[in-house]
Amino acid sequence: MTEPSAAHLSCHPFDDDKLHEECGVFGIYGHSEAAALAALGLHALQHRGQEAAGIVSHDGKHFHSHKAMGKVGDNFSTEEVIKSLKGSAALGHNRYATTGGTVLRNVQPIFADLANGGLAVAHNGNLTNASTLHRRLVQEGSIFQSTMDTEVIIHLVANSKKTRIVDCLIDAMSKITGAYSLVSLTSKKLIGMRDPFGVRPLVLGKLENAYILTSESCALDIIGAEFIRDVSPGEVVVVDDSGISSHFPFSAPPKRFCVFEHIYFSRPDSVVEGRSVYDVRKAIGSQLALENPVEADLVIPVPDSGTPAAIGYAEQSGIPFDLGIIRNHYVGRTFIEPTDQIRHLGVKLKHNANRALINGKRVILVDDSIVRGTTSTKIVQMVREAGATEVHMRIASPPTTHSCFYGVDTPSRAKLLAAQYELKEMCAFIGADSLNFISLDGLYKAMGEEGRNAKQPQYCDACFTGDYPIELVDNDTGMDKELTLLAERY
Amino acid sequence: MTEPSAAHLSCHPFDDDKLHEECGVFGIYGHSEAAALAALGLHALQHRGQEAAGIVSHDGKHFHSHKAMGKVGDNFSTEEVIKSLKGSAALGHNRYATTGGTVLRNVQPIFADLANGGLAVAHNGNLTNASTLHRRLVQEGSIFQSTMDTEVIIHLVANSKKTRIVDCLIDAMSKITGAYSLVSLTSKKLIGMRDPFGVRPLVLGKLENAYILTSESCALDIIGAEFIRDVSPGEVVVVDDSGISSHFPFSAPPKRFCVFEHIYFSRPDSVVEGRSVYDVRKAIGSQLALENPVEADLVIPVPDSGTPAAIGYAEQSGIPFDLGIIRNHYVGRTFIEPTDQIRHLGVKLKHNANRALINGKRVILVDDSIVRGTTSTKIVQMVREAGATEVHMRIASPPTTHSCFYGVDTPSRAKLLAAQYELKEMCAFIGADSLNFISLDGLYKAMGEEGRNAKQPQYCDACFTGDYPIELVDNDTGMDKELTLLAERY
Amino acid sequence: MTEPSAAHLSCHPFDDDKLHEECGVFGIYGHSEAAALAALGLHALQHRGQEAAGIVSHDGKHFHSHKAMGKVGDNFSTEEVIKSLKGSAALGHNRYATTGGTVLRNVQPIFADLANGGLAVAHNGNLTNASTLHRRLVQEGSIFQSTMDTEVIIHLVANSKKTRIVDCLIDAMSKITGAYSLVSLTSKKLIGMRDPFGVRPLVLGKLENAYILTSESCALDIIGAEFIRDVSPGEVVVVDDSGISSHFPFSAPPKRFCVFEHIYFSRPDSVVEGRSVYDVRKAIGSQLALENPVEADLVIPVPDSGTPAAIGYAEQSGIPFDLGIIRNHYVGRTFIEPTDQIRHLGVKLKHNANRALINGKRVILVDDSIVRGTTSTKIVQMVREAGATEVHMRIASPPTTHSCFYGVDTPSRAKLLAAQYELKEMCAFIGADSLNFISLDGLYKAMGEEGRNAKQPQYCDACFTGDYPIELVDNDTGMDKELTLLAERY
Amino acid sequence: MTEPSAAHLSCHPFDDDKLHEECGVFGIYGHSEAAALAALGLHALQHRGQEAAGIVSHDGKHFHSHKAMGKVGDNFSTEEVIKSLKGSAALGHNRYATTGGTVLRNVQPIFADLANGGLAVAHNGNLTNASTLHRRLVQEGSIFQSTMDTEVIIHLVANSKKTRIVDCLIDAMSKITGAYSLVSLTSKKLIGMRDPFGVRPLVLGKLENAYILTSESCALDIIGAEFIRDVSPGEVVVVDDSGISSHFPFSAPPKRFCVFEHIYFSRPDSVVEGRSVYDVRKAIGSQLALENPVEADLVIPVPDSGTPAAIGYAEQSGIPFDLGIIRNHYVGRTFIEPTDQIRHLGVKLKHNANRALINGKRVILVDDSIVRGTTSTKIVQMVREAGATEVHMRIASPPTTHSCFYGVDTPSRAKLLAAQYELKEMCAFIGADSLNFISLDGLYKAMGEEGRNAKQPQYCDACFTGDYPIELVDNDTGMDKELTLLAERY
Repeated sequence: MTEPSAAHLSCHPFDDDKLHEECGVFGIYGHSEAAALAALGLHALQHRGQEAAGIVSHDGKHFHSHKAMGKVGDNFSTEEVIKSLKGSAALGHNRYATTGGTVLRNVQPIFADLANGGLAVAHNGNLTNASTLHRRLVQEGSIFQSTMDTEVIIHLVANSKKTRIVDCLIDAMSKITGAYSLVSLTSKKLIGMRDPFGVRPLVLGKLENAYILTSESCALDIIGAEFIRDVSPGEVVVVDDSGISSHFPFSAPPKRFCVFEHIYFSRPDSVVEGRSVYDVRKAIGSQLALENPVEADLVIPVPDSGTPAAIGYAEQSGIPFDLGIIRNHYVGRTFIEPTDQIRHLGVKLKHNANRALINGKRVILVDDSIVRGTTSTKIVQMVREAGATEVHMRIASPPTTHSCFYGVDTPSRAKLLAAQYELKEMCAFIGADSLNFISLDGLYKAMGEEGRNAKQPQYCDACFTGDYPIELVDNDTGMDKELTLLAERY
Repeated sequence: MTEPSAAHLSCHPFDDDKLHEECGVFGIYGHSEAAALAALGLHALQHRGQEAAGIVSHDGKHFHSHKAMGKVGDNFSTEEVIKSLKGSAALGHNRYATTGGTVLRNVQPIFADLANGGLAVAHNGNLTNASTLHRRLVQEGSIFQSTMDTEVIIHLVANSKKTRIVDCLIDAMSKITGAYSLVSLTSKKLIGMRDPFGVRPLVLGKLENAYILTSESCALDIIGAEFIRDVSPGEVVVVDDSGISSHFPFSAPPKRFCVFEHIYFSRPDSVVEGRSVYDVRKAIGSQLALENPVEADLVIPVPDSGTPAAIGYAEQSGIPFDLGIIRNHYVGRTFIEPTDQIRHLGVKLKHNANRALINGKRVILVDDSIVRGTTSTKIVQMVREAGATEVHMRIASPPTTHSCFYGVDTPSRAKLLAAQYELKEMCAFIGADSLNFISLDGLYKAMGEEGRNAKQPQYCDACFTGDYPIELVDNDTGMDKELTLLAERY
Repeated sequence: MTEPSAAHLSCHPFDDDKLHEECGVFGIYGHSEAAALAALGLHALQHRGQEAAGIVSHDGKHFHSHKAMGKVGDNFSTEEVIKSLKGSAALGHNRYATTGGTVLRNVQPIFADLANGGLAVAHNGNLTNASTLHRRLVQEGSIFQSTMDTEVIIHLVANSKKTRIVDCLIDAMSKITGAYSLVSLTSKKLIGMRDPFGVRPLVLGKLENAYILTSESCALDIIGAEFIRDVSPGEVVVVDDSGISSHFPFSAPPKRFCVFEHIYFSRPDSVVEGRSVYDVRKAIGSQLALENPVEADLVIPVPDSGTPAAIGYAEQSGIPFDLGIIRNHYVGRTFIEPTDQIRHLGVKLKHNANRALINGKRVILVDDSIVRGTTSTKIVQMVREAGATEVHMRIASPPTTHSCFYGVDTPSRAKLLAAQYELKEMCAFIGADSLNFISLDGLYKAMGEEGRNAKQPQYCDACFTGDYPIELVDNDTGMDKELTLLAERY
Repeated sequence: MTEPSAAHLSCHPFDDDKLHEECGVFGIYGHSEAAALAALGLHALQHRGQEAAGIVSHDGKHFHSHKAMGKVGDNFSTEEVIKSLKGSAALGHNRYATTGGTVLRNVQPIFADLANGGLAVAHNGNLTNASTLHRRLVQEGSIFQSTMDTEVIIHLVANSKKTRIVDCLIDAMSKITGAYSLVSLTSKKLIGMRDPFGVRPLVLGKLENAYILTSESCALDIIGAEFIRDVSPGEVVVVDDSGISSHFPFSAPPKRFCVFEHIYFSRPDSVVEGRSVYDVRKAIGSQLALENPVEADLVIPVPDSGTPAAIGYAEQSGIPFDLGIIRNHYVGRTFIEPTDQIRHLGVKLKHNANRALINGKRVILVDDSIVRGTTSTKIVQMVREAGATEVHMRIASPPTTHSCFYGVDTPSRAKLLAAQYELKEMCAFIGADSLNFISLDGLYKAMGEEGRNAKQPQYCDACFTGDYPIELVDNDTGMDKELTLLAERY
């Protein structure tokens, strides 16, 4: 993904100035329509990854697989594809690739024939010692077919001396560090695993007699399945013909769920780790209004992610909520690289100001976050050009100052606006009359806490604080670029 | 397009229970980046037609053309395509096809080599005497290459005895009846024409020295062009190297602009016929709250078209506005035909209820219209299943009781819910606790009138009243199916 | 088609230094598998045109059509396509396009809805007054959808005042000049027409109760159909449910069948105008040996078109026939434009010398014709490099000195080697030790005549003599480039 | 590949009743246009495999790869592809897949990142202990990405404890049995290896300063490269910046080159193991005429593989050689499954009898081999229907009675005509008046031997004798189906 620049016009959703979740997973065991349900589940999780999707199924005898670049609806909507994915167990994956070179062999679930049978794995998260493990495995004779950290896990399983596949998986789990929610499918079991800190989400659901392991509750809603519970940090859930069993192979540190799932990643209709995402976002907006009031005529959301916080802000402040920015929902490819002639026109592919509404008004813009500041700058300018007399920007998260190493695509620190500038400078950069972020304690309050427990933070908030709960092995040893380099080698 | 049924799951935007505008047009004359700007303009008009798009350009010597099934962003975003569309004049068209058999030869603009040079035509609207004219032309030796009514116009131009192309076009205009906003490109001119009643929109804009004729002002905004004025009903606007000139070849009846453009078709950030679409929709919501109040906890829009009216309703009623229904924006293809197993699960591809919000609440749902009632039924049921204790439906338009013959795809009357049932029956059909539509006079009030002038209605509101301002020639003579049958012949 | 040059390596069959037939046609009436048989017939006629193919069928009520760029086997081999072409009558066409800009709308059969019903036309040949007629028709209001001369015929039919379609076709026939074998399909008839001179071939066959009109007898053989007779020059054959009838609407000049059909165009297993193509070619080789003997060790055909003549030459001369040049049958696309590095290597994509055979031998190469001389030059050089001590080239046709205007793609005279050079110079150009062509009289003898009747030649041999039997209307009036220019206009 | 049957009409070259070579390889080291030359070399080797092709290149730093289903000319002819394959070393492979399930991951060269660097391998041949090795490797933790025996070699290399890549390859070579000509590319070397019996061909060539390792000399001819020598059985040839070196790591058994390369697989313009293929085939035809004379009017080759032997037969017998069967060179896809209606017509997609020539004649048909007898049966019938009064079939190889396990796709013995029937029955089966095969000793004589040395045969002729020189490990242990089953598992 290149960063948004004057060099191209884009209406691609990933060219937003947003952080991007890297994946969504959906596994189901025990339903005659397993693959169709997996396709629907992945469709509900499309916001977690749109560059590629894959489903592996098992029919009692054989595995079947279909993977494709692009969205679920474009690749898994034909009868031909769904019928080819036979069986009552299926495992699906949506991928958002952090590198430009997404290729089909990097699409998950990945599958391998091991000595004790076939194994398919779908992974949400990021290992922090993948390169270190990769180098060691290659030296011992392993041959890799992809540059995904997920394949490291498969090789660890293949090289485990244990007999039962669950034990092999736990063996592998003992060697990896990082954030992961992992779902595996064997010829007889569906197995879910969550890292000991529980950074990435994973929920358990039920539909008739089938069990489901998936990233968010909205993937249960789409097929009318029942939400049972979140999988616990460090838990290994095994689903097979005899039902469900749980393992906790490691002593568990206190939970550190990713706070950004609440701020932006998860769908507003999902309930994650016990809280309604929509409620949290409205509460953040409300808290933001308490912390940073300003006199104005209108509260305007930056669509669509800023909308719940804007509603909360408007309710708290008593200033009317209005749609002052209209989003063109026909997002798609990057448009042609324009000539200078066109570039200076200030083309508005994704958003358009509602000039008739805004003209002559003092407006408060509410957005969920600022990453590099490029989009905010454009939006403030667009709103001014539409006649706003004052533009006040309010952000529903603290300043994003650090990169994520746990499965979220973040620009390097050098590109994070808040890592480079003070508040005033940021305000000047985006051209607003005022700029405020919710405070870190305010954020925790909106999530029902009394505030952030500095000694033992209730969430992973490393992107705001640099407080990384899980060791960054590759990064600390300078190995972190190894897989990336490998990806470029061929 | 088949009608939504239990037979398939669809997240296709056209499988909504909505009326569909048939087209958007964008012509530009006098800009070195004409084709790129046309592509951007069509992108902004994508909501008016998504099945196909085409652009014809002229470079002073030759015409160039590119047409494709699918969306603008998918087909006009490469440098290769845009570079192939050379020249400083370009004409583009988005198509929504009313019949299943959309094929490339039916994609506009259509082009013909006439005795006095090449002519490209892009058309928004529908002729009411196309079949009658088609039969006559064929009898006189014309050979048609498509089944579009637009081609009738081209043949009338080809057979005109006039010398100047503008006169040939006016000649053709004198023979056709119906609603149309037509933009033509010749080797020397860009010509816009609007039917005498001005049913379909057409606006004039300017960018640097270039003039633009397009369907909505939002297509000017996207490229930073200036809105000049609406083209008048019955007006012929000619743009060439010497500037702009206007012709009014026919005596004009009172204007009858399509009221549904305000209710649903146009983008909320467009200003059509002098009014902000967003303002009108909020005013409708407000009027709806005045006419049909009800005690409740939440006002919930049916996204996205019901949102402005819902904001208006909430403001007027003082009941909080909240996002109780979340839309999955990754709309796309029709999904696989599901088995009975899946169908009875009540899959929710496009919308999901925000259960955490709705549960235990009395809710008011606000939608823009009800056509067949299929979507409303599903949404009411979904909201109830999410725990709403009462569901009150409020509709931001009067009951849709008649088909449109002026360029909007409407089901036959037999399928229009309001043509078949009384209000109470409709309420029962969709399963709501109460159902109300805005009154016809209320609608006119929201648009700034004192009410509907029954003797001389200010708008075309035939879909609500059956009062058709333009003669339905083919329909009255039973010829209306001729072109349709022809389309099926090969 | 660009001419073969150092600029690219090509193994495309059309990059041969050969003249190219422009089309093959196949119509069948009265068989339940009409479309499948048409596809097979077109496959047998693939040598007459490989750039595009189309089939139109009629099922008693509707016409059905499928056209595609590329070969028959690539586009008409699926059940889906064949099943879509319903009905017991079908008309197919293979196209070789003379201009680079082959596009789908130029693929035949072309179809039009006329006042008296649908009409599909497939055409082999070339009208010599197409541009003149085209201009007149456009002035009278006709709109063309292609730049093919065939469409002129359709418009003449559409504008005919006659009632019966056969009469309309004869009406059109009375206005066109040129060489043509035309097959038309209406909802009730299959109609074949051959120009009065009978320049291009057309044969009548029978399979069970079905009649077939096609270009060559090999298209009858492939489906086991019986050859009945050649359609006569100037004949109109009408096949319908009541059987076959013939019309001769015009007084017939003496026949002038294209002599090049015998030399190169037709398949060696076809019998055309009463003679076996293979026999004629062997007889030409034999005559060539009589006229131009030379002492040598081997007779080597330039594969594959020179093979029958080489066998005849070898038999007559008593010198052994051997495969000294091996052809790579995996012909296909033009290869990448090579760098100078590669070009000077003398890459041999299509042919390779059989060095082990040739080395140290005196060889006679037999080829069917020389057009520009480019291929001959390469082949002589290749054979010398493989060790041949002497290379004698013998050509199975007289020198090609004039362009064809009757449906064969010929380079302009300026590019014809024999139009520019004397025999000796040609021999030097291609680098052979000796070069000889068969004499004009020798050619006629090989076809069973006593010699060429100069006053009334028995064949059209304009490419060797410049004696054009049919008036070149467009060419004489300078109109001949009009349609070509039009094709470039958009 | 399904076997030819009444169930479909096919003009696919692989639906011939022929044995099929499984691969062609081409490696080049030290030329700035390495990839382009590899593409041309593979084009010349297209007859050895047409289902897929791949090229891997190395540019001093990175490997580059492009693989595709289909022919070389269709996938490696664009500048974009060739330019992407940077570097002065390249390795290419043509694949003919023995199983229906050819998929892209099974296309060679296969590539792996090993501890000591990248390794690409292209393989012609077949390992006879691949399944046995595969099972052992998986048990030890290797993860396979394909079902090709070639990948076994890569894993053996990865698991070798040696340091230098050449030693690792020799280590692997010591563990595999079977027939193979293998070319490997590392970041610094091009390495060729031939199995100790030298069953499959491999030649060394030179172009300027670059060395080439490829399957046949015709791949040298196409780019004007010089033939140096055959690689010896058991030889390991290493090409790097310091030139060429040879290793013979194992004691060598007497050579057993595949005799069928001379009969059918190799191109007639290749020189293999010191003999001209064309000369050998003519000598076979001559010997066949000596052994099995018959009175007749014409000698007719079954095109194209029977042609050289037919020329030899004709020369020896004094009976004229003539083209009595014409082949349609536009071979391609399998045609539609015809209805019974069409099937009984006896459609002749690939061949047509030259009726004018054959009618009333006694003919000798010469073909290279009979596998299942299906094609021969059709051809004899076709020739009879064209009027031949006698049909004598002569076959340029001994009866094919055994399957090949060394890299040639053979039907199971149960489907080999000669394994089921005596000569007389075979003659009756194909419907000929007489049938003869060349004798085994006659075949050896045609290749310059005095006869077959039964104690130590000079060639591998297992397909005629069942005398398998290399142990069939998997077959003997019943493991031979393991990889095939695996291929079906997902």
